[in-house]
Amino acid sequence: MVRNIIITAGGTSEKIDEVRVISNFSSGRLGLAVADAFLESQSAGVGKIYYLCDRNTIVPSDKRIEVVRVMGVQGLLEALKDLLTTEKIDAVIHAMAVSDYTVKMVTTLGAVRAGEENNPEKQLTDGKISSEIEDPVIILEKTPKAIGEIKKLQPSTVLVGFKLLTDVPVDVLIQTGYGLLQKNGCDMVLANDLTEITGEKHVGYLIEKNGKYERLTTKKEIAEAIVRNVDLLLAAKEGSNR
Amino acid sequence: MVRNIIITAGGTSEKIDEVRVISNFSSGRLGLAVADAFLESQSAGVGKIYYLCDRNTIVPSDKRIEVVRVMGVQGLLEALKDLLTTEKIDAVIHAMAVSDYTVKMVTTLGAVRAGEENNPEKQLTDGKISSEIEDPVIILEKTPKAIGEIKKLQPSTVLVGFKLLTDVPVDVLIQTGYGLLQKNGCDMVLANDLTEITGEKHVGYLIEKNGKYERLTTKKEIAEAIVRNVDLLLAAKEGSNR
Repeated sequence: MVRNIIITAGGTSEKIDEVRVISNFSSGRLGLAVADAFLESQSAGVGKIYYLCDRNTIVPSDKRIEVVRVMGVQGLLEALKDLLTTEKIDAVIHAMAVSDYTVKMVTTLGAVRAGEENNPEKQLTDGKISSEIEDPVIILEKTPKAIGEIKKLQPSTVLVGFKLLTDVPVDVLIQTGYGLLQKNGCDMVLANDLTEITGEKHVGYLIEKNGKYERLTTKKEIAEAIVRNVDLLLAAKEGSNR
Repeated sequence: MVRNIIITAGGTSEKIDEVRVISNFSSGRLGLAVADAFLESQSAGVGKIYYLCDRNTIVPSDKRIEVVRVMGVQGLLEALKDLLTTEKIDAVIHAMAVSDYTVKMVTTLGAVRAGEENNPEKQLTDGKISSEIEDPVIILEKTPKAIGEIKKLQPSTVLVGFKLLTDVPVDVLIQTGYGLLQKNGCDMVLANDLTEITGEKHVGYLIEKNGKYERLTTKKEIAEAIVRNVDLLLAAKEGSNR
């Protein structure tokens, strides 16, 4: 059984102006580990692996992987829509650290205080913000949640979500991860805490639909557990379709 | 004659919170080309090459190069101070795209409008900004100019500055580059325009102290011209010191 997989990996970049971006510290190495695990999985019978990532993300060098570079959350949404509406995608591993926010406008503190931030003359985003401005202000707005679009575009796909929190108790982490699962129709969610990610150590909790979870301690373990669970779900689906 | 060189390369990252940064599109490839040109230069007799860059910048793989990772403009300033006050550095090629701004605070649009952005309770930078905030606002402030510190720390070093503008006439580009040279005691400045940098093509004007300039059209040409001019200046100095 040939399967098509989408992996999203690394961080996103939201443009501030022609040279500046808001980005994040995501190394993209968890996405690499997931790609490796799919390639190594004997049972997977991988067809295509689409690897969606930002322009600066490190990517797998294996030729079986098709790298799709996207710019920002908007670029990610367009690429997902394109793939999910034109191909049968068996699973989406949505490991990308997608920005919650994009740049609404760049203006000055003075303009905001004067209630004039919407005045077109107070915008600084045309070209490169001059280094002479004393008090630039970046006003953010929420991005659409890419994860929420995936099952709408292709309800039958297996969806693995990721939730990163910072310095919270494990029960809060599990609860928040499970909330993400329920809200977006994920089949499983990997919940992790920034304070438990250092170099090779990477603690993550892989939460299933029934609320059970497995604790994993390296990127390799996390990747292998995701692939194993995706394989099981796909095998079960294929069995019930026979 | 053994020479010690500092090359700064790539972009900088200014922290917004524990996971987000303001970064820029600098690829770091011009810095790589300069490092290659120094290594290849027969006359250079290179001692140490310190390569200062951000955590995500691509770096030369040659073992003669000592990579020093810095975090943000503050980290760059500390590394420069450390090197320039403890070692004889013959030349600094300051190719890094240093952020003009750092994050002063992160608060909400509501807080700024109410004039309460300085209220400690209105700060969002403790940990990771929650994705639930509707109207986050990043207030920026100017960074100290690293280029201005270099000759203060070691007046005898040869200093090469870089100026990037966006879509300006060539005469404005040259004038602005020459202004940077005069202001910071640079021995030469490479002025370039973002609209003339695409892939391998990279137009730059290498401006000398006497106001003369040379037009170059690739990263390799730029790097080689910089190394050639630095070599000439150092040879002249060594001659006059004999």
